[in-house]
Amino acid sequence: MRLDVVTIFPEYLEPLNVSLVGKARARGRLDVHVHDLRRWTYDRHNTVDDTPYGGGPGMVMKTEPWGDALDEITADGYEAGAHGPVLVVPTPSGRPFTQEVAVELSQRPWLVFTPARYEGIDRRVTEEYATRMPVYEVSIGDYVLAGGEAAVLVITEAVARLLPGVLGNAESHRDDSFAPGAMANLLEGPVYTKPPVWRGRGIPDVLLSGHHGRIARWRRDEALRRTALHRPDLIERCDPAAFDKKDRETLSILGWAPEPGGRFWRRPRDVEE
Amino acid sequence: MRLDVVTIFPEYLEPLNVSLVGKARARGRLDVHVHDLRRWTYDRHNTVDDTPYGGGPGMVMKTEPWGDALDEITADGYEAGAHGPVLVVPTPSGRPFTQEVAVELSQRPWLVFTPARYEGIDRRVTEEYATRMPVYEVSIGDYVLAGGEAAVLVITEAVARLLPGVLGNAESHRDDSFAPGAMANLLEGPVYTKPPVWRGRGIPDVLLSGHHGRIARWRRDEALRRTALHRPDLIERCDPAAFDKKDRETLSILGWAPEPGGRFWRRPRDVEE
Repeated sequence: MRLDVVTIFPEYLEPLNVSLVGKARARGRLDVHVHDLRRWTYDRHNTVDDTPYGGGPGMVMKTEPWGDALDEITADGYEAGAHGPVLVVPTPSGRPFTQEVAVELSQRPWLVFTPARYEGIDRRVTEEYATRMPVYEVSIGDYVLAGGEAAVLVITEAVARLLPGVLGNAESHRDDSFAPGAMANLLEGPVYTKPPVWRGRGIPDVLLSGHHGRIARWRRDEALRRTALHRPDLIERCDPAAFDKKDRETLSILGWAPEPGGRFWRRPRDVEE
Repeated sequence: MRLDVVTIFPEYLEPLNVSLVGKARARGRLDVHVHDLRRWTYDRHNTVDDTPYGGGPGMVMKTEPWGDALDEITADGYEAGAHGPVLVVPTPSGRPFTQEVAVELSQRPWLVFTPARYEGIDRRVTEEYATRMPVYEVSIGDYVLAGGEAAVLVITEAVARLLPGVLGNAESHRDDSFAPGAMANLLEGPVYTKPPVWRGRGIPDVLLSGHHGRIARWRRDEALRRTALHRPDLIERCDPAAFDKKDRETLSILGWAPEPGGRFWRRPRDVEE
């Protein structure tokens, strides 16, 4: 997979040299190019921004440097169809970047990232390139960053670990939170390793029982408990058919009740806080 | 504000030297310490992980290095009350990190981050420190990373830009997506700057009108449009009282209808896809 990142802070992308993404590059799974947007400015101040039309605070990133940069970088990609580039625009106004989007992007051969600063990039840039390639305007979460670079690191890492041959033995994505399958939409419960007692704190007996069925059940109950506590929205989104009898029992104990006709489970209003 | 980060990939935190966070450090607003977790290992392989109790794929980070590291780093912080450290644990199993959590954390004087790798940290570590300091287990979004380091960069940046004296004039958080106020829960619409025509693409006339009321109205309609398109969940969460007559008109045009007795606005089922 080829990755291009255009930014006014190339040094922010240093983490692409280390850890998982760095290893994927070393193994030839990723071909990463970080470009300084100011290379495509031609005035002596290397201007990339100007005041917004219509007034208001902040600055807007100008069309020309982005247009010239993207033209040059993606020149080989036009009319390449499925082999061509996809534009990934991190923005708080985008649709949510989720594990499903990560999977989708991991199947493309070439991603071009345009992390913005200030109030964002002049709208005409995405309009222009949307006529030539797929554009993903994505938001990594409901918070505001100083720029899109941190989002590029997040998206790159989420995508890179899905590429074949990238994850080592110490890592695994079979039991990931948000992975498809039986644990879909459930958060992972607690994990433990040696020693069996640390500062007077033991581990749950069941994990030493050697009884696979009981261990699996305990893990699922813990996952349900944790999800109900931190992400009630995920329980509401769960497919009712994904809950077995014991799941339903656990959810009742946690104060959840089936709601006839609506989404399957809901916490009664009075325990909502 | 003091920040400590304990990690097995200290070089991943290089971006804390650049851009906004770098500037905040240069201005003395942030005091950042990045620690290599392996400093607190005493075997010759500098082991930080072991197999999970109960079996399964992946590795779990051991209690001892984390415990020893946190003891040493936070030694001055015990019984310091509001001046003491807060432990920030990035994990996909945490509660969502949102702008509100960023605001909360920005009011604390000292944050200690424990970005994990592999399947996470032995549960007893957070249990132990939760008896001594507030613990924030937070997830930056519904996707899986290779480790918590990228999340630390995200959280640090979201928090740092809220500190007084950190944002420059070119940046601003008055009109941020997710900022409190009239635009609460609405995404920002498009922005434009000079030139007025680029590659045959103009800008909306209203932005050249000089009519502040009309410009504000246009921006709000665009914000509603974008939010309805990318984040219908945010429209459903909006306070009905926050919508004026023109908002309601715009939402109707977008296919939303008021739902008596429930949340205020809902898209009819048949346009949900």
